[in-house]
Amino acid sequence: MTYCVAMCLDEGLVFASDSRTNAGIDHIATFRKLFTFGVPGERLIVLQSAGNLATSQSVVNLLKQRLGDTAQANLHSVPTLYEATALVAATVREVVARDAAPLAGNTDLSCSFLVGGQIAGGPPELYSIYPQGNFIQATEDTPFLQLGESKYGKPILDRNLEFTTSLAEGLRCALVSFDSTIRSNLSVGMPLDLLVYHRDSLIVPAGYRVTEEDAYYASIRKQWSAGLHELLAQLPAPPPEYNI
Amino acid sequence: MTYCVAMCLDEGLVFASDSRTNAGIDHIATFRKLFTFGVPGERLIVLQSAGNLATSQSVVNLLKQRLGDTAQANLHSVPTLYEATALVAATVREVVARDAAPLAGNTDLSCSFLVGGQIAGGPPELYSIYPQGNFIQATEDTPFLQLGESKYGKPILDRNLEFTTSLAEGLRCALVSFDSTIRSNLSVGMPLDLLVYHRDSLIVPAGYRVTEEDAYYASIRKQWSAGLHELLAQLPAPPPEYNI
Repeated sequence: MTYCVAMCLDEGLVFASDSRTNAGIDHIATFRKLFTFGVPGERLIVLQSAGNLATSQSVVNLLKQRLGDTAQANLHSVPTLYEATALVAATVREVVARDAAPLAGNTDLSCSFLVGGQIAGGPPELYSIYPQGNFIQATEDTPFLQLGESKYGKPILDRNLEFTTSLAEGLRCALVSFDSTIRSNLSVGMPLDLLVYHRDSLIVPAGYRVTEEDAYYASIRKQWSAGLHELLAQLPAPPPEYNI
Repeated sequence: MTYCVAMCLDEGLVFASDSRTNAGIDHIATFRKLFTFGVPGERLIVLQSAGNLATSQSVVNLLKQRLGDTAQANLHSVPTLYEATALVAATVREVVARDAAPLAGNTDLSCSFLVGGQIAGGPPELYSIYPQGNFIQATEDTPFLQLGESKYGKPILDRNLEFTTSLAEGLRCALVSFDSTIRSNLSVGMPLDLLVYHRDSLIVPAGYRVTEEDAYYASIRKQWSAGLHELLAQLPAPPPEYNI
């Protein structure tokens, strides 16, 4: 399984992905699920993937391979992030069609992508491509999108994330959301890949990999856990009708 | 859908259930999912249900109807909570067999139950019956069990609940777990049915229904929400390598 979250906020974009893949519980591996395309000063396009690893890797490989091919649209030539998302979706369709019957039988080849970034002339945008190939866009009302094991880490986002939330607070929210998910679900695991993009900077950030040893993530986890304990302990005692 | 949680703690048992049922998003109704059997001074048996409403209602009705029938085992006569759970599971099988083909076709008739309580001579116990009819028991290592939409509300339980947690803190934990679930998932809704049982009291508590207007639940929700906001804001700022 997988957990990815991306946010499209007033100040810019935040992306966070785990890196665990599994085919059954005894076939676990680490694969990066966050991929960066871009031209400094002109565009940044970030992809996050979930679902069938063979399909998502093929999609990313084909998108990379075609960057130099000016005969067809590619992620360095499409004029808008909407077109970039449509191109990723078309590539998913192409790979699934290629890898389907007769060899694949009933294997589920589907995968999902989050596509976010900014292309000069447009605002930062964020899209989610469904396994069916159609896609939706994050808005000011719903500034975050998730992939995979999204339920454990959703309450903290639902409660705290708004379009006007700062990038730093968005990032902390994402780290807490991942901590909650990783504690409750074995199929989501470290390390995490993070990327923060400041609106209109049009740089292509290297991103940052958070390992088990990361001191900041460890401090966030510890402080959050201790704070929750304290918060629970401070809640008022139930009245008599609760029979405590 | 449904969300139920039950805890088997050192001090006793805590049960909490939502009351929303839905068949599609435009067919929503309120049905109690927490049922109490018992003989004061001798036994308490609490059932919580999820899944097909026709099946779970039939199971509870049959179990009630048979309480007076001394010719066969019933929930007032079985000697242990283990036997009570086996009886509930057998009744699920009986109802599904009765209601299955030819009329039901592909309809999913399955349902799940949590069964908890205490019978004089034994300790408080808690079991979870799978839709397949087999069942597991809560232990000191894993003192809580959930049914239905369990993921949103699981992190707070995973983080804070231990066998030695007090009933009052367990109850607060359950209320926070429900608040997180209800905020993130429309298929789980108010009112909530709560029941707290003190170890060895062998009383049959009336339980308590938490409505939208409940002042204590409102204060818990408000304080928790504000506390989380504050906790997030107090987390340290990310170091430079995080690119904030």
